Amino acid sequence: MHVDRGRLREDLLANATFGGVESEGHGRTVLTGTEADRAAREQLLAQFEALGMDGRVDRVGNVVGRWVPETADPDAKPVATGSHLDSVPHGGIFDGPLGVYGGLEAVRVLRESGRELARPIEVVSFTEEEGTRFGVGLLGSSVAAGTLPVEEALALEDETGTTLKQRLEAIGFLGEGILDPGDWEGWLELHIEQSTELESAAKQAGIVTAITGVAHYSVEFVGEANHAGATRMGARADALAAAATFISDIERAGHELVAGGEEFAVATVGHAAVEPNATNVVAGRVELGLDIRDVSPAVMDELLERARESLARIETERGVETSLVEDQRTEPTEMSTRIREALASSCQRHGITSTTLPSGGGHDTMNVARHTDAGLLFAPSRDGISHSPAEWTDWEDCAACTLVLAEALAALAE
Amino acid sequence: MHVDRGRLREDLLANATFGGVESEGHGRTVLTGTEADRAAREQLLAQFEALGMDGRVDRVGNVVGRWVPETADPDAKPVATGSHLDSVPHGGIFDGPLGVYGGLEAVRVLRESGRELARPIEVVSFTEEEGTRFGVGLLGSSVAAGTLPVEEALALEDETGTTLKQRLEAIGFLGEGILDPGDWEGWLELHIEQSTELESAAKQAGIVTAITGVAHYSVEFVGEANHAGATRMGARADALAAAATFISDIERAGHELVAGGEEFAVATVGHAAVEPNATNVVAGRVELGLDIRDVSPAVMDELLERARESLARIETERGVETSLVEDQRTEPTEMSTRIREALASSCQRHGITSTTLPSGGGHDTMNVARHTDAGLLFAPSRDGISHSPAEWTDWEDCAACTLVLAEALAALAE
Repeated sequence: MHVDRGRLREDLLANATFGGVESEGHGRTVLTGTEADRAAREQLLAQFEALGMDGRVDRVGNVVGRWVPETADPDAKPVATGSHLDSVPHGGIFDGPLGVYGGLEAVRVLRESGRELARPIEVVSFTEEEGTRFGVGLLGSSVAAGTLPVEEALALEDETGTTLKQRLEAIGFLGEGILDPGDWEGWLELHIEQSTELESAAKQAGIVTAITGVAHYSVEFVGEANHAGATRMGARADALAAAATFISDIERAGHELVAGGEEFAVATVGHAAVEPNATNVVAGRVELGLDIRDVSPAVMDELLERARESLARIETERGVETSLVEDQRTEPTEMSTRIREALASSCQRHGITSTTLPSGGGHDTMNVARHTDAGLLFAPSRDGISHSPAEWTDWEDCAACTLVLAEALAALAE
Repeated sequence: MHVDRGRLREDLLANATFGGVESEGHGRTVLTGTEADRAAREQLLAQFEALGMDGRVDRVGNVVGRWVPETADPDAKPVATGSHLDSVPHGGIFDGPLGVYGGLEAVRVLRESGRELARPIEVVSFTEEEGTRFGVGLLGSSVAAGTLPVEEALALEDETGTTLKQRLEAIGFLGEGILDPGDWEGWLELHIEQSTELESAAKQAGIVTAITGVAHYSVEFVGEANHAGATRMGARADALAAAATFISDIERAGHELVAGGEEFAVATVGHAAVEPNATNVVAGRVELGLDIRDVSPAVMDELLERARESLARIETERGVETSLVEDQRTEPTEMSTRIREALASSCQRHGITSTTLPSGGGHDTMNVARHTDAGLLFAPSRDGISHSPAEWTDWEDCAACTLVLAEALAALAE
């Protein structure tokens, strides 16, 4: 089996011209339902057709190309792979497209290899993975997985009040039926890592063990706004000083769990809103956004418990009222052992260096994994940068991971 | 000597009708150069006239009423008192007006008492003390003290681009000459405390020892913005976690100096701006506003040094770059011993309970003190509330402090 690095590169660079932005590096802005999105989708359908694959589009615009190998039973459950073609504004050219065009190249490779496959292969591009335009990430795969009702998804509005349905209709990608991951024998997504573990470990491929769960909380501190000059240190109920104590506490909790041997355990406060937010006024109210992630629900619970303990201590010691409200919580998703083993064997067979690692970011694979065996393969990201024109994965690594993908798809389809 | 509480109350309530706002409590909005401001100023001039005082207005609208007692040498340096009539939006009815109408009532009391005074008495209302409309607080007294050039002051623009000069012209209060505090034998301002020390100590009057110096700094933390899921705890340069450490450090420094016996020593972070300020992104940049105050420049320096030490440690331990820039620094202002003694004697003579205390807030007296002996007298503020319709000082306390003021003015003018 041989991946044609030039062919893959050509596909990705052609796709990068849609919504291309002028900047250092390679950037693109492909929001769902724009002309750039239409062009990217039509190009993909054209490539399917060129390979003799059947293209179809579902009700939320998810695009699927189906290849039935000569040796395959057309009624057998297909093995599927893919990712997404949409981007964030001024995003990179690999986040998403590598998994779609890597899947297409894998089909080419498998055709050329003459491997006898018993199952069809499907290549998928999910709609609105980034959630940039309609505010809901993993949209297409959520509809496919049944966690987001299709009518609700189609009624979502962008900033101008136009619905997803109208946008898809306008670009000719409001299709029929709904993609069902339960129809698949298995699923594999190739995606860039968006972090530096592979780079640090000098590995060409990352086999994801689990996608971490994510929980978001709004944490509020209500003290008393007061004149910064007239209010002595001992007479304050300073909401920002209280919030600072909390930020330090939850950061320390993350570090302690990691030091104690937990595999992931991240806790982040990335958002703060201060009232009245004036240098000469003791803050009366602060709201923080807390993000907790781990591969184990128990560790997420432990971090939450540490957050609650911190708040209880702050209330006692500072005379500041606090509250913590859960805004969302998604449980961790284990990747299928069967798929992980197929990926490991592929790496070994082709002499491609790899490591196992959890994914801290969410991917469409989380939704697919509700209905079939699913796996996620990471390609290295230079400096861990993504969502930026500076996002980069060496063509050699793109090709190596595509080879691993093709070999694993073959193993699952045999 | 007898203060007529009803007369003082009537003056303050009449003044409160200008720019009066409907709300619980007594509120008013008197911004410089508005119709409310015009009405308040005209009322004051009318009251001067009713008492046979000469009213005048300087180039930035500072209003002065001059009373020459029969026994006085008209060429002797006058003793002056006053405050301001402008307010913040939805401000209270005592912050400013108590010192102006308390001064007027003091003149009435002295006339009625038949005390033989050798010097004229002047009652002043400074323009734009609050700095709400033209962005520069203590404006009128700064021009009078020569720290703000008059042409610069007159050219200041409000949010609509209209200059102070245009606004003063429009209300008929663009006068001539510039008030010179150097012409005064001494100065005394009566103002509400805006804090709770008098209330806590159950005292009727506060003799200010010094007005604290104020320094403002912009403190910046530059880390690396990163995906909150993809970036492990150990791989972060979290600007918000670094800023939180700083906030805790500088708060502790203030508490430690107070515990070590310093009289004031407050350090406040009341402002924070976070970038990108998203719950799921490790913060890349945070800017804090730091406010340091004390009655001694050395203690202000010590707090600043503690801030710098914190930043140095944060840089070493966290791989975050920091910077600290001074935005403004005003040194502490000692109140004149002579004036403080006059106030203390007045309290004693009339059986009015008092205490000495520093002022954490800035007042026009800071500017006047550059040119003549100056003193500041505080009346109690219920619950320490100011800049709000809930601001309140009991009429009994208003009258008691006005009596102290009148007695001290007499002592200085004899």
